[in-house]
Amino acid sequence: MGSTFGRSFRLTTFGESHGRAVGAVVEGCPAGLELSEADIQRELDRRKPGQSSVTTPRREEDRVEILSGVFEGRTTGTPIAMVVFNRSFDSSPYERFRHVPRPGHADLSYHLKYGHWDYRGGGRASGRETLARVAGGAVAKKLLSTIGVEVLGHAVEIAGVRAKPVPLSRLRQAESTRVRCADLEAAKQMEERILEAKRSGDSVGGVVEVVALNVPPGLGEPVFDKLDADIAKAMMSIGAVKGVEIGAGFEAARLRGSENNDPIRLSGDRLILAGNRSGGVLGGISTGMPIVVRVAVKPTPSISAEQESVDLLERRGVRIKISGMHDPCIVPRVVPVCEAMLALTLADHAIRAGVIHPCRL
Amino acid sequence: MGSTFGRSFRLTTFGESHGRAVGAVVEGCPAGLELSEADIQRELDRRKPGQSSVTTPRREEDRVEILSGVFEGRTTGTPIAMVVFNRSFDSSPYERFRHVPRPGHADLSYHLKYGHWDYRGGGRASGRETLARVAGGAVAKKLLSTIGVEVLGHAVEIAGVRAKPVPLSRLRQAESTRVRCADLEAAKQMEERILEAKRSGDSVGGVVEVVALNVPPGLGEPVFDKLDADIAKAMMSIGAVKGVEIGAGFEAARLRGSENNDPIRLSGDRLILAGNRSGGVLGGISTGMPIVVRVAVKPTPSISAEQESVDLLERRGVRIKISGMHDPCIVPRVVPVCEAMLALTLADHAIRAGVIHPCRL
Amino acid sequence: MGSTFGRSFRLTTFGESHGRAVGAVVEGCPAGLELSEADIQRELDRRKPGQSSVTTPRREEDRVEILSGVFEGRTTGTPIAMVVFNRSFDSSPYERFRHVPRPGHADLSYHLKYGHWDYRGGGRASGRETLARVAGGAVAKKLLSTIGVEVLGHAVEIAGVRAKPVPLSRLRQAESTRVRCADLEAAKQMEERILEAKRSGDSVGGVVEVVALNVPPGLGEPVFDKLDADIAKAMMSIGAVKGVEIGAGFEAARLRGSENNDPIRLSGDRLILAGNRSGGVLGGISTGMPIVVRVAVKPTPSISAEQESVDLLERRGVRIKISGMHDPCIVPRVVPVCEAMLALTLADHAIRAGVIHPCRL
Amino acid sequence: MGSTFGRSFRLTTFGESHGRAVGAVVEGCPAGLELSEADIQRELDRRKPGQSSVTTPRREEDRVEILSGVFEGRTTGTPIAMVVFNRSFDSSPYERFRHVPRPGHADLSYHLKYGHWDYRGGGRASGRETLARVAGGAVAKKLLSTIGVEVLGHAVEIAGVRAKPVPLSRLRQAESTRVRCADLEAAKQMEERILEAKRSGDSVGGVVEVVALNVPPGLGEPVFDKLDADIAKAMMSIGAVKGVEIGAGFEAARLRGSENNDPIRLSGDRLILAGNRSGGVLGGISTGMPIVVRVAVKPTPSISAEQESVDLLERRGVRIKISGMHDPCIVPRVVPVCEAMLALTLADHAIRAGVIHPCRL
Repeated sequence: MGSTFGRSFRLTTFGESHGRAVGAVVEGCPAGLELSEADIQRELDRRKPGQSSVTTPRREEDRVEILSGVFEGRTTGTPIAMVVFNRSFDSSPYERFRHVPRPGHADLSYHLKYGHWDYRGGGRASGRETLARVAGGAVAKKLLSTIGVEVLGHAVEIAGVRAKPVPLSRLRQAESTRVRCADLEAAKQMEERILEAKRSGDSVGGVVEVVALNVPPGLGEPVFDKLDADIAKAMMSIGAVKGVEIGAGFEAARLRGSENNDPIRLSGDRLILAGNRSGGVLGGISTGMPIVVRVAVKPTPSISAEQESVDLLERRGVRIKISGMHDPCIVPRVVPVCEAMLALTLADHAIRAGVIHPCRL
Repeated sequence: MGSTFGRSFRLTTFGESHGRAVGAVVEGCPAGLELSEADIQRELDRRKPGQSSVTTPRREEDRVEILSGVFEGRTTGTPIAMVVFNRSFDSSPYERFRHVPRPGHADLSYHLKYGHWDYRGGGRASGRETLARVAGGAVAKKLLSTIGVEVLGHAVEIAGVRAKPVPLSRLRQAESTRVRCADLEAAKQMEERILEAKRSGDSVGGVVEVVALNVPPGLGEPVFDKLDADIAKAMMSIGAVKGVEIGAGFEAARLRGSENNDPIRLSGDRLILAGNRSGGVLGGISTGMPIVVRVAVKPTPSISAEQESVDLLERRGVRIKISGMHDPCIVPRVVPVCEAMLALTLADHAIRAGVIHPCRL
Repeated sequence: MGSTFGRSFRLTTFGESHGRAVGAVVEGCPAGLELSEADIQRELDRRKPGQSSVTTPRREEDRVEILSGVFEGRTTGTPIAMVVFNRSFDSSPYERFRHVPRPGHADLSYHLKYGHWDYRGGGRASGRETLARVAGGAVAKKLLSTIGVEVLGHAVEIAGVRAKPVPLSRLRQAESTRVRCADLEAAKQMEERILEAKRSGDSVGGVVEVVALNVPPGLGEPVFDKLDADIAKAMMSIGAVKGVEIGAGFEAARLRGSENNDPIRLSGDRLILAGNRSGGVLGGISTGMPIVVRVAVKPTPSISAEQESVDLLERRGVRIKISGMHDPCIVPRVVPVCEAMLALTLADHAIRAGVIHPCRL
Repeated sequence: MGSTFGRSFRLTTFGESHGRAVGAVVEGCPAGLELSEADIQRELDRRKPGQSSVTTPRREEDRVEILSGVFEGRTTGTPIAMVVFNRSFDSSPYERFRHVPRPGHADLSYHLKYGHWDYRGGGRASGRETLARVAGGAVAKKLLSTIGVEVLGHAVEIAGVRAKPVPLSRLRQAESTRVRCADLEAAKQMEERILEAKRSGDSVGGVVEVVALNVPPGLGEPVFDKLDADIAKAMMSIGAVKGVEIGAGFEAARLRGSENNDPIRLSGDRLILAGNRSGGVLGGISTGMPIVVRVAVKPTPSISAEQESVDLLERRGVRIKISGMHDPCIVPRVVPVCEAMLALTLADHAIRAGVIHPCRL
C-alpha cells in the first residue's frame, strides 16, 4: 500500500528501477483539459539523468506513452495512465548487494518489512520511482495553469553554500544553471563543491525551495488535511527528503509574535498580507499569498567510499564500496520532483475546495 | 472535510472553542484493550491551560467522558467516542473581532474559504481543538504500550535558548519542568525569556522534539505513505507548527554521504544501525531504531502589542490589541499534542503493517 | 473500522444500544446551510419506537443535541456532531444471552471477530445504531433540498402483501399509514398480517422502495464508485437488508433488450428517457430521471418462538425464547433509514460531481 | 474518480475500449505470493469474447503483461501493474454514434457529466473495462487460495429459464457448458433461448450466483463496511448488474422470523449454522458458512432492433439500429467478472480483518 497520493486528484504509481516499466495513473483530472505526451515529456526531461557533470552520467531515454484518458487531444475525465518502459539497464552490478543492504538506502527496511524484495537498483525504493511523480505532476501543472497557478522550484543551498534571496520574478533563471540555483554566483560555488565531493567518492545534499504563485485563497481543509500538512507529507514522501518547512519555518521558532504575524491590509478591495512569514497558509488554508516551502535533501547514499554493512546470508559484517554512476548531488534533479509534489497537492486541494470543477473544465 | 486522521486507526474530531463541546471518535482500536476515562484524563491534564505562569492563566476543567466503544473496562472494537463539554467561557471579548481577522490566526483564511465562521476564540481553528487530538492520542499510546512502544516529547529550544542534548534515559525529567525541557539549566533560561516576552505583551516560539522508543521495524508504506511522510503531515497539521524534520533533518543537507549514512551492524542476531541520523526511518520504513522528530513551533499569534488588520464590514484598516489570557509561549502545551500525533501515526502504521492485530488483542 | 460512510460528505457514527449515547459526526457539509435540532428531531421521530401497535411498544425519547458545526443557525463548514443520550433502559433481560448468541442476530459473528463484545441489546449491531444514520440523513436531506432533490420511501410489500403501484405524486400518503404504504388498501392487509405474526410470537419482513426526485444528471463516478453501486452499499449496510435492486432490478433479468432499454427523447431542449427501467442511472451515472431503489428487509430476528443456539461458556446446545418488546415487523421503521442512506449517498455524490459546492452554499 | 476498489487490497483500473490499452494496478498484495502471467491469463481467457455461439463472435487476443510488483516469480509487496494492449479494432462503426447516444448504454450519462467523451465502443463504460477487474480478481483468487478460500460462479437463470439447485460439489460443472450453468438440462434451454433472441436481433439477461467456500469467520466491518455491503457495491459496480441479494435475499422478505433465522449449533467444537439463509453473513460479518450472492444481469443493450434516440448535434430525434458483433447474452461472460469482484472484496476484507498478513505471506 501507499502508492496513491491525493484524494480528489489522485496519483497512483507503480514500477521498479530495473523492472519492465515505471508508470503513473492519474484519477480525477476533469474532462476537457488539453494534454499531450509532449506536456509530460518536457517535465520528465528536466528530471532525467545524464544532464550534466553534477548529476549521474547514466543515460536513460525515459519516453512516456499515454495509455488512456486522453481522446482527440483532451482529457475525458477517466484515468490517465502513463508508462515509461525501462529500456536498457544492467543489473549485474547489483548482484553483489543481493544479500548486503547498502547503508542509507531502503534495502534494510524493505528486507525487514517484506522479506522478498527487488534488490536491483533499489527496486521500488529507487529514485527512478520519482519519474512517475513528475509525470503525474505534469498533468497537475497543466491543470493548475487553467487557473493561473504556477509552481517553481530552485536550489537555495547545496553543500553548505547558501544562495542569496532572489526576487520571485528572477526565480526562472535557476533553470539555466546546472544546479538549478537562481543566485548565479552561488550556483558556481555549489557546482565546485559537488565536483569536489565527486572526486573524493563522496556526495553532498542541500535545500530546495518550491514556490507556488497565484494560488487562490481557500485551499486546505481543517484540521488534519491542512494545506501545509498535505504539502509536508508530499515533500517528506520523496526518498531523499529529511525536513520540510513552510514560510518562516524553523526560523519562526526564534521570532517573537510581533515579528512573525503578517499584518493584514486592504489592497484595493482585496485582503492581503504585508509580509509572508506564514508562507501563504494560515490555519492550514491558503491566503492568496505565494506558497513557500523548503525541503532538506540528504546527500546521495550511494558513495564509493568504504562503508560498513552486513551480509544477511552469511550473517557477518562486511565492508562495501558502491561503484557506479551515481549522482554526487541529487538536489538539481529533486527540484522538478518537489515541483511535481507541490503541484499534485495544489491540484487536489483546488478540486476539493471547489476552485476547479471536479468533472469538466 | 479534513477532520479525520489515519487509515486503519482513525481519529475524527469535532468541536469549536466556544461551542458546546469538543470531541473525538477513535475507529480501529482492536477489542480487548483495557481503557478508562482516567487513561484519557491523565493526558488531557498535561495539555490543559492554567498549569503555570509560563502558560495561559485560563482555567478549564476539561473532564472527558467516554460515550461508546468501551464495555466492562475494555474496548470492544467499535468506535470510541470521547467528549469534553465546554463548561464556562466568556465569548464577549471576541465580539470586537467579529469582523476583524486577528493577524497570525486562521480568521482571515476561514473567512475567505467559508464566508460564515465561528469567530469566538478561533472556533474550530482554536488551539482548544488539540484536546481532541490528545484524547485520541491517549488511546493510541495505550495501544502502543501493548507492544512496548513509548512516545516522549520535550522542548529542545524556546525563544532562542537551545537545550543541550540529553540521553534518552533522562528525557522523562522534562516533565518536571514548567517548560518541559530535559536540560534543567536551559529550562530556567527558557522560563525567563518567556516571562520577559509576556511582560512586553509579546510571545515566543520554540522547537519540540518527540521520540518513539522500541518501535518495531517495518512500519511505513512506500512510496507516498512513508512513515516519515505521515509523521510530517501529523505534525504540520498542528496549528502552530511551521516545520518538521526527521533524524538529522535540515542538518543532513550540510553533511556528506559518508557522514550521513548510518553504518549497518549485527548486534547479536539483530540488525542495528550504528548511529541514527536517519531518525529511525529508511526509505519511509521504520528500522527498529528510535524515531526522532523535531517540529518548529511559531510564537503564539495572540499578543497585546498593537497590530494591523482590516474591519471586513467597514472595509477599512484598523489597529488592534488582543488583550486576554493568552499563552506567552505555547511550546510546553504543544509537547503532549506532538506526542499524541506521533502516537496516532505509529498506532495506525502498526496496524497497517500487521504488527498489531486490527480486530482483537 | 467501518463506521464512516461517504467520501466528500461523510457520516461517522458511534454508540451502542445500551451504552451512554449514540451519535453522528457529519463532515463535508458546506457552510451556510440553515440547520437546527428541530430539523434532525423531525426525522428521528419518524424512526423512533413506540409509534404504533405494528412496531415495538418500547418508548424511547431520543432527543438529539447538536454539539458542533452550527453557529447562529447555520452550518460553518466544520464537523457537525450530534448526540442522543440513551436515557433509560433495562439491560437485565439480556443477561441471559451473555453467552448465548441469538439466531439471526450479529451476536455470533461479533463473538467470532472480536471476542469481547457488548451483548446488551445487540450493542453496536442493534437497530438502534440506525438513529445516527437518520440524524446524518436529515442533514443530507436539508442539503439536497437546496438543489430541489427530494427523497421519499414507502413500503411496497409486507408479509407477502404487495402494494399496487402508486403514482409518484401520491407517495406521500404512505406517511399517513402505520405501515408506511401508499396503497391504502394493501396497508390494511399488511397491518393485519403483522399483528397476526405478532400474536404467534413471530415476525415478518417486506420490501421498501425509496425514490429520489429532481436528481440532477451527472452524479456517480465510473467505474467502481457508480451511483448505483454506492446506493447498493448504502442499503445493504442496513442491518436487516438482504437485497437491493435499481429500476427494473431482478425483473430486468427476464426482459429482452428491446423491452429493457429506455428510449432517449428530446423534451423541449432537455434529454429525457421515455421509461425508467434503468431507475435513474445509466453506466453508474444519474440521468436526471427519478432514482428508484428497492430493498428486501428480512423478518425481525428477535422472536418469542423457541430457537436453537449454543451456550458458549458451557459449550452445549440450548433452546431459547426471546421475550421482550420487539418489532413484529421492522419495515415501517426502516423506511426513514433507507431514505437517510439514499440522501447521504446523493449528497456525497452531488458534492463529488460539483453540483453542490464543497465549502459554502 | 471512482476507478479504485478496496481499501487494504486495492484495485485501480484504467483504459478505454478503443484506446491503447486496458490495465490494472493491484496495491496491497503481500510479498511472497507466487504469481505469473499465466495465472492472470487463465482468468482472462474465461472472460474473453469469441468463445462460443452464445457470446460475441469478436476475437480479441487479450494478452496480459505484468509490468511491476513481481520479482523472481513472487510478489514483492509493491504495486502489481498489469496491462493488455488493444491490438486490432475497428472504430469506424461507432462514427455513426458520435453524436447519438445508444439507449441502455452510458453514452447519455457520460455526455451529461463530462461533455467530452470517448464514444468509440463505449470508451471507459465498455464491458471491455471488466477485463481489468478479472486481472485484479485473478491476483485476489491466488491470494485467497493461500487460506483455502475458493470462489465459484455460475448462471442460475437466463432468459427466464431457471436452473434447478445443484449441490456445491457439482458447481464446477457449470464451466463445461457454454452458458456456465451447472444444471445441464437448463443449460441447453438457456442456450436455445439465447440463440432465438439473437436471431430476432434482440438480447436476453439472467441471474448469476457466486459462492465463496471456506471463508473464515470475522470478515466485514460494522456498520457501513459490512461484508455484504461491500459485496453489494462490488457487484452493482459491474455495468450490466441491476440487483444484488445475499443468502435468501428478496425471498427473505416473504419468510417469517422463525423460518429465516438459521439455528446455531455446535459441530465438534466449531460453531455452525444449521441452514444458510443468511448467506454466510450476519451483522455484516462472515460466519464461516459459504457466502452466497446472486446478481441480476440486464439484457445486453446493443441490439439490432430499431430504437429511438436523439442526435445531439442536430438536436432531433432519430431511429437507430446497432449492427455489430454483440453478445446476445452477456451472462456467461459476466460469471468470471462476478467471481473477480467477490474475490477482490474477500481479499480486501481478509487483510482488513488480520486473517491475511498485510505485508508478507
